[in-house]
Amino acid sequence: MENRKENFSQWYNEIIETAGMIDKRYPVKGMNIWMPYGLKISQQLDTFIRKYCDSSGINEVSFPLLITRGQLAVEFEHLKGFEGQVFWVTKGGTDQLEEDMSLRPTSESAMYPMFSLWIRTHGDLPLKIYQIVNVYRYETKHTRAFLRDREIHFFEAHTAHESFEDAEKEIEEYLSIWKEVARVMCVPYIIHRRPEWDKFPGARYSNAVDTVMPSGRTLQLATLHQYAENFSKPYEITYSDENGEKKFVHQTTYGMSSRLIGAMVGIHGDDKGLILPPDLAPVQVVIVPIPSGTDTFSYAKKIYEMILASGIRVRLDDRDSYTPGYKYNDWEMRGVPIRIEIGEREVGSSSVTLVLRTEKGRKKVESSKLLDAINESLNLIREHMTSKAIEQLGSMLKDSLSLDDMVKWNGASQAAWCGKKDCADEIEAKTEKICLGYRLDIEKSGECIVCGNHGKLATFSRTY
Amino acid sequence: MENRKENFSQWYNEIIETAGMIDKRYPVKGMNIWMPYGLKISQQLDTFIRKYCDSSGINEVSFPLLITRGQLAVEFEHLKGFEGQVFWVTKGGTDQLEEDMSLRPTSESAMYPMFSLWIRTHGDLPLKIYQIVNVYRYETKHTRAFLRDREIHFFEAHTAHESFEDAEKEIEEYLSIWKEVARVMCVPYIIHRRPEWDKFPGARYSNAVDTVMPSGRTLQLATLHQYAENFSKPYEITYSDENGEKKFVHQTTYGMSSRLIGAMVGIHGDDKGLILPPDLAPVQVVIVPIPSGTDTFSYAKKIYEMILASGIRVRLDDRDSYTPGYKYNDWEMRGVPIRIEIGEREVGSSSVTLVLRTEKGRKKVESSKLLDAINESLNLIREHMTSKAIEQLGSMLKDSLSLDDMVKWNGASQAAWCGKKDCADEIEAKTEKICLGYRLDIEKSGECIVCGNHGKLATFSRTY
Repeated sequence: MENRKENFSQWYNEIIETAGMIDKRYPVKGMNIWMPYGLKISQQLDTFIRKYCDSSGINEVSFPLLITRGQLAVEFEHLKGFEGQVFWVTKGGTDQLEEDMSLRPTSESAMYPMFSLWIRTHGDLPLKIYQIVNVYRYETKHTRAFLRDREIHFFEAHTAHESFEDAEKEIEEYLSIWKEVARVMCVPYIIHRRPEWDKFPGARYSNAVDTVMPSGRTLQLATLHQYAENFSKPYEITYSDENGEKKFVHQTTYGMSSRLIGAMVGIHGDDKGLILPPDLAPVQVVIVPIPSGTDTFSYAKKIYEMILASGIRVRLDDRDSYTPGYKYNDWEMRGVPIRIEIGEREVGSSSVTLVLRTEKGRKKVESSKLLDAINESLNLIREHMTSKAIEQLGSMLKDSLSLDDMVKWNGASQAAWCGKKDCADEIEAKTEKICLGYRLDIEKSGECIVCGNHGKLATFSRTY
Repeated sequence: MENRKENFSQWYNEIIETAGMIDKRYPVKGMNIWMPYGLKISQQLDTFIRKYCDSSGINEVSFPLLITRGQLAVEFEHLKGFEGQVFWVTKGGTDQLEEDMSLRPTSESAMYPMFSLWIRTHGDLPLKIYQIVNVYRYETKHTRAFLRDREIHFFEAHTAHESFEDAEKEIEEYLSIWKEVARVMCVPYIIHRRPEWDKFPGARYSNAVDTVMPSGRTLQLATLHQYAENFSKPYEITYSDENGEKKFVHQTTYGMSSRLIGAMVGIHGDDKGLILPPDLAPVQVVIVPIPSGTDTFSYAKKIYEMILASGIRVRLDDRDSYTPGYKYNDWEMRGVPIRIEIGEREVGSSSVTLVLRTEKGRKKVESSKLLDAINESLNLIREHMTSKAIEQLGSMLKDSLSLDDMVKWNGASQAAWCGKKDCADEIEAKTEKICLGYRLDIEKSGECIVCGNHGKLATFSRTY
């Protein structure tokens, strides 16, 4: 295993394959195979996302993959933003299609023609839907698994409201869903208002949730867009209000992707391999019996049945072709939160030995108190992972007082900025760090680090 | 609502939209929008399929959508079978791609190059994987939602084994998974060995599970293919056996699709709308409070909480803009298995009134005995739906003693057949019924209905 601190990039590329999350040898660039372990982590995260959306009254749907060129062209900025980076289907069998169709890069242009059919009166509002599908981008940049793929596992919520204010409230609601998602991932974050030139094609404004990876580069985790009437006008999505007057709806979207998986891998791992948040680990507890004169296996099996019955995701590693030591390393590499060792001493004392992935040392627990001990340990791991990640984020995000400071610092830089593109461009030219926009979660003002005019706290960083 | 018996096709097309399962107005032919209610039914079915696969030791993976022309061309019969019916991606942004890529029509050619990397020795076998993804077929025939789409929700299991015999055993194992799937759908079926000319492109043989729809046309529900070494040779999937000798693996596949949803709709519905199997219904119990002087709503809410806590999928219909009568019809149309009515009499007697979707009449139940009554009722509905569907299948599947008999009969016909294509062609020319192959679940022989030579029981039918 590579050293994570010194060679983060190599460490990352290696661990996602070694741990059995994906296989990168598929013969199409930027498209990987989700292997059973990686797929389970992703599906577990989706289960949480579905739960939070359901309780927020957002309904799941699934739209077709193909979007005609005509659909995509309805909103001009949107077409301009995407036409150069989509895959185009032009033939069916041996026939040339009458109209080229794109593989969805995102689903505004698939959904909004239907919004205009579904929405008639204010009684139909708010309309709140989401889907979890793959999207496709013809990336010309260097691809990297989970962080920049050409096939992307994607969550997108789309809502329509009577007024701009209602749409603003939805964006706040999105943030409360985001907080839950971040909590189960144990991933800390900062929030930005993206600069005008970097907002989503067609949006009034874009808010984004970012984190900083151990490499010092920031990673966008989620986006929350206010569309106002920018899409409802070209797509003619109108409703009649209580006075029978025809009005355009105000729209928002909320997007997340498999970048969340990449963030979890990068932020929590160590030189031994993955460290998975307890809520998302496919295996929360692994039991390794240590062969001896005593029948440790039967006892381990009883412990396994007891844990399984409690609903905890447990696995009994009864492979007889591997030593206990090999198994310890193997499951540590896969990031399993808790290991239970069972040798003849444990059998003799009706106990087990617990080893937590995030702590040093072992502790012996009586089997009658095991379930409580596991639940407490999972909580301890959650807390430990979260506080360690917060500390790590803090260490990668520094205030810079000058451009020279910014150049010298490898991580993300905070500085006051006046909001002008010229100043952001100058920062990028000198430091190779791009402007992520104003911090939305901290209000702080000062003199722009470039021009000295009044500015607000912003983040500058190399990005994934 | 159309009359299901007289106008099955119109009834079917109407109910799937009226019940909120899909929206067919998406502007790409043969691609529909899964609406929340339809998507939930499909996801519920997937949950069962995943459970059965997991306990059968088949692991879930997810392969990329795009398959290069080169990958598809490795096995000639397979390419020949699919190249005329796939969508081709030829451009990325404004670039012409170096090689055309197809949207997966099925995933043999995506997976098998990886099998040849994953499999080295007999210790790697059996290799058993599945995925649930959408597949794409450029259908030139008339499309019909769930039954013949261009975007198809698809399940595909792929396995590799040391020997032909091991592969044969896997096909038996598939059938035991299928039986569980059929059980939760309450859908009866018959099994065929497809004729040589109708087997899957590249297969040694194809077994198929079929059912008969109320229209008299048969619908293929699942396919189980024996590939033997037909794919492992061109894809070079080999293993070294215990003596270090290099051998080709033997492969099988098992496929199912959203046709299962279409079958459930068609087989169980009635003139009032859908009837959903209890295990797959998004709402198993709906509670309708009847407004009155008494506070029926608070009581209904208590009943709702009690049912919810038991894990049953329950909904309280508290919409105040609709009458109870409207709600009864609405939920009956959506196929909800059990309705609970709560009026002032029910509140007064601490009871509720149960109405089952599949039975006539109402029954009063004390609230203290309600959970047992619901579970018994769900069982009763399962039994009722299953026995009614078996009866219906029996009535649509008749023995024919002559081709004239076969012409006159609108449903599926059973007759002895010698196995020759000439005889099957003659049957098709005269009766417009195609040969589904020998029945595998019934052994019966007789004289071929065309040539009089020795034959075995086969099915002939119009198909979807």
